[in-house]
Amino acid sequence: MLVNEMTEKDCRDLLARSSIGRLGCSQDNQPYVVPIYFAYELDYFYVLSTIGQKIEWMRANPKVCIEIDEIASESEWVSVIVNGHYQELPEPQYADERAHARKLLEKRYLWWQNALGERQVKSGEELITPTFFRIRIGSMTGLRAIAEGR
Amino acid sequence: MLVNEMTEKDCRDLLARSSIGRLGCSQDNQPYVVPIYFAYELDYFYVLSTIGQKIEWMRANPKVCIEIDEIASESEWVSVIVNGHYQELPEPQYADERAHARKLLEKRYLWWQNALGERQVKSGEELITPTFFRIRIGSMTGLRAIAEGR
Repeated sequence: MLVNEMTEKDCRDLLARSSIGRLGCSQDNQPYVVPIYFAYELDYFYVLSTIGQKIEWMRANPKVCIEIDEIASESEWVSVIVNGHYQELPEPQYADERAHARKLLEKRYLWWQNALGERQVKSGEELITPTFFRIRIGSMTGLRAIAEGR
Repeated sequence: MLVNEMTEKDCRDLLARSSIGRLGCSQDNQPYVVPIYFAYELDYFYVLSTIGQKIEWMRANPKVCIEIDEIASESEWVSVIVNGHYQELPEPQYADERAHARKLLEKRYLWWQNALGERQVKSGEELITPTFFRIRIGSMTGLRAIAEGR
């Protein structure tokens, strides 16, 4: 297996064609990882989050990591790791950013069209109101593995 | 979308049928997330790691998180989050554990059969010797989302 660094262009191409990533946040040096659906544009990941302790943790510590990959096999994969910062997009002060994020997300996700409209998420018996946030990209590295002899 | 907690049995069933997870570690509250191939057995994930800063970080701070999921769509998914502790398996003191991990991993991964034998990983021009480690499971939670009206 040969592992090589990806160019920044290759990294950004992967982000642009991806929709699922794994978001890591941290509290008292205990990491926490969850899957997210995102829309990537320029230096931001836009996310509509439905549930969980991650929002609480990122409010306390905005340093996050997002990992995006395409894994064909143990020896053929690409993986991009982004360090970034959490920024919540509450109303009304982020009305423009929310509208923009909404447009990006609606392009891609059927379910979110509903979630962004009237539907909500039910956790057990509790209704959860989704939260908009974005991650500003700070730095980015990518690795590509290929099987030898190909 | 309805989101419900999974039972511990459902969580463990997912771990047993999975082979890829995303491992989070942390340094100075900066999280870092990478994909891993693992073999799960009882309270341990066994991993043969090929490359990267994660080993260094986990040696300094053994608190880790592993996220394992199956994502069918935005509104149909399962995701299990494990908090655990890093334990390296160097020779010769962990010879038994290494042999056991090797057996588990060889069952599942063709490439590792080679990596565990004579082949190595080439990063650029540098040869990397894989490192064996395991993660002891401390706690585990799982969520299952289903689309409403199904």
